Amino acid sequence: MSKTAYFVGIDVGGQTIKGGVVDDAGQALSTVNVPTEAYRGQEHGLRQMEEAVRRAINAANLKLGDIQAIGVATPGTMDIPAGIILDPPNLHPWKNVPVRQHIAEAFGKPTAFQNDANAAAFGEYWVGAGKGTQSMVLFTLGTGIGCGIILNDSVLEGRHSHGAEVGHIIIEMTNGRMCGCGQPGHLEAYASATAVVKRTHEALIQTGGMSSLSTTLRDRGELTARDVFEAAQDGDHVAGKIVEDTAFYLAVGATCMMHTVDPDMVVFGGGMIAAGDGFLERIRHHIRRLAFPVPAERTQVRYAKLGVDAGFIGAAACARQLVMSG
Amino acid sequence: MSKTAYFVGIDVGGQTIKGGVVDDAGQALSTVNVPTEAYRGQEHGLRQMEEAVRRAINAANLKLGDIQAIGVATPGTMDIPAGIILDPPNLHPWKNVPVRQHIAEAFGKPTAFQNDANAAAFGEYWVGAGKGTQSMVLFTLGTGIGCGIILNDSVLEGRHSHGAEVGHIIIEMTNGRMCGCGQPGHLEAYASATAVVKRTHEALIQTGGMSSLSTTLRDRGELTARDVFEAAQDGDHVAGKIVEDTAFYLAVGATCMMHTVDPDMVVFGGGMIAAGDGFLERIRHHIRRLAFPVPAERTQVRYAKLGVDAGFIGAAACARQLVMSG
Repeated sequence: MSKTAYFVGIDVGGQTIKGGVVDDAGQALSTVNVPTEAYRGQEHGLRQMEEAVRRAINAANLKLGDIQAIGVATPGTMDIPAGIILDPPNLHPWKNVPVRQHIAEAFGKPTAFQNDANAAAFGEYWVGAGKGTQSMVLFTLGTGIGCGIILNDSVLEGRHSHGAEVGHIIIEMTNGRMCGCGQPGHLEAYASATAVVKRTHEALIQTGGMSSLSTTLRDRGELTARDVFEAAQDGDHVAGKIVEDTAFYLAVGATCMMHTVDPDMVVFGGGMIAAGDGFLERIRHHIRRLAFPVPAERTQVRYAKLGVDAGFIGAAACARQLVMSG
Repeated sequence: MSKTAYFVGIDVGGQTIKGGVVDDAGQALSTVNVPTEAYRGQEHGLRQMEEAVRRAINAANLKLGDIQAIGVATPGTMDIPAGIILDPPNLHPWKNVPVRQHIAEAFGKPTAFQNDANAAAFGEYWVGAGKGTQSMVLFTLGTGIGCGIILNDSVLEGRHSHGAEVGHIIIEMTNGRMCGCGQPGHLEAYASATAVVKRTHEALIQTGGMSSLSTTLRDRGELTARDVFEAAQDGDHVAGKIVEDTAFYLAVGATCMMHTVDPDMVVFGGGMIAAGDGFLERIRHHIRRLAFPVPAERTQVRYAKLGVDAGFIGAAACARQLVMSG
């Protein structure tokens, strides 16, 4: 018999279901990937989730009997207490999928269900950047901005499963940039990786191509946020301005959270970590300028540590919490 | 012997200490006012707090022995867990006042300490507009915007006693109006009573006095937010635009909270309640437009019910929670 407890976490994304077995100390014993193939419908999707759970257990050289509980993280929209994905834009054409019940019945295990950004935050809080803190806000920068808030050892789910949708707070109410959600002025419309690329295209037009990025764009036909951050580090002025503005926008978002939740720590994750410590220092600089003196001085501002594993590790943390509190 | 438990709550304001005895059901048995006289120094202020507690007990025809616990609410800045007011702009020249310890020792009773806006929110949650909800955000509109967030039956204090400083979230990061705190673009700079008056003065200059408010201003030498709301109800176009903009700004603030905390209910308190149901309906209109569909449809948006008593009733609620939680 093993001395420790084991949990399976899976993180269902638009393209891939990432999963793994995580022990009671938050250590991942296996990592597996299974294609989501959302287009093949939700029944197929549920089978792919089962497959991810089975493979995660096999890859850890364990048996189902060794597993205490399972955690599933998915993108929204969702009803977290009911365990249902409602109408997920990233998992077209799924509708009203009873994920928690299905997985619980398929494996006969207690099953936790959580929003993917919330799960990532809970993972970072458990064994990542936020380990040892009392409260934490995570911003994950990608196509959009995912956010999770941890307070009192729990995910802030909100009354209608819309807690921590902080990519969609309004930071520019007049003439704000249009967000992917259809509303203007949201944080995500300024500071996501998508927004970085969009603002760069605009700047290249305005500056008439006075940037190394114009060459990159001509050669490759497209730009990524990573291109922009790399060009900034190489001293490109257009890219430098975009990156500096991005640090400011993220500091605005962080300050809003520091004046609302007032957490121990604000964590930034996602591809922009590749921009390095200089970028994080610029975010900190703007936070010190924008926030009230006490939180400005004391709130820790860090990069995430778990990378793309945060979601499944956090899902496993939710499973663990379910068993511990149960 | 009485069947119920009694608590004293006091709410220390810049001018007045309001206090009362509150029973276990949240009913106020007495209401008293004692001048704060902050200018006479903090030792005097602490004696005035004691006086408010004594008078509240006397006015309820009770004795100190009947009281289970005392709650004190004060303006910030503060260290809530330590029970200390640090450097309160509204209580000049006080500094580092150990309020909780002083009151606890003066009366030999368990004493709770809380930020005044947080206490008001806890009062409304206990027996006011938010009674029966699971979570609530209160905006109190006055000279500034006070805010309190109730989650899991508790005040969200934050790690550095800066939780729910939502008057100071950034809603306009470019060319924002200057807030009283010295930073631009804060909600309070747009939607407090002070901001309403300021925007009205600007509008009167811009419109060349085409408003009944110009006459009011000429006759009285000053305007209040109440004047503006009354003029709007009487059909004045300049005032009408100011009030409509205010409803929009408050909806922006509410939406940011609905996308962060996602509460059961958003409550608006303070002098603007006098503007009536029409104003509340305009706030709701903008929220439905700005927020995600599910919270937009389901989050209750109400006026506060306890008026200026919310603070001391909430302070009593904190005292009660202190005793109940052991």
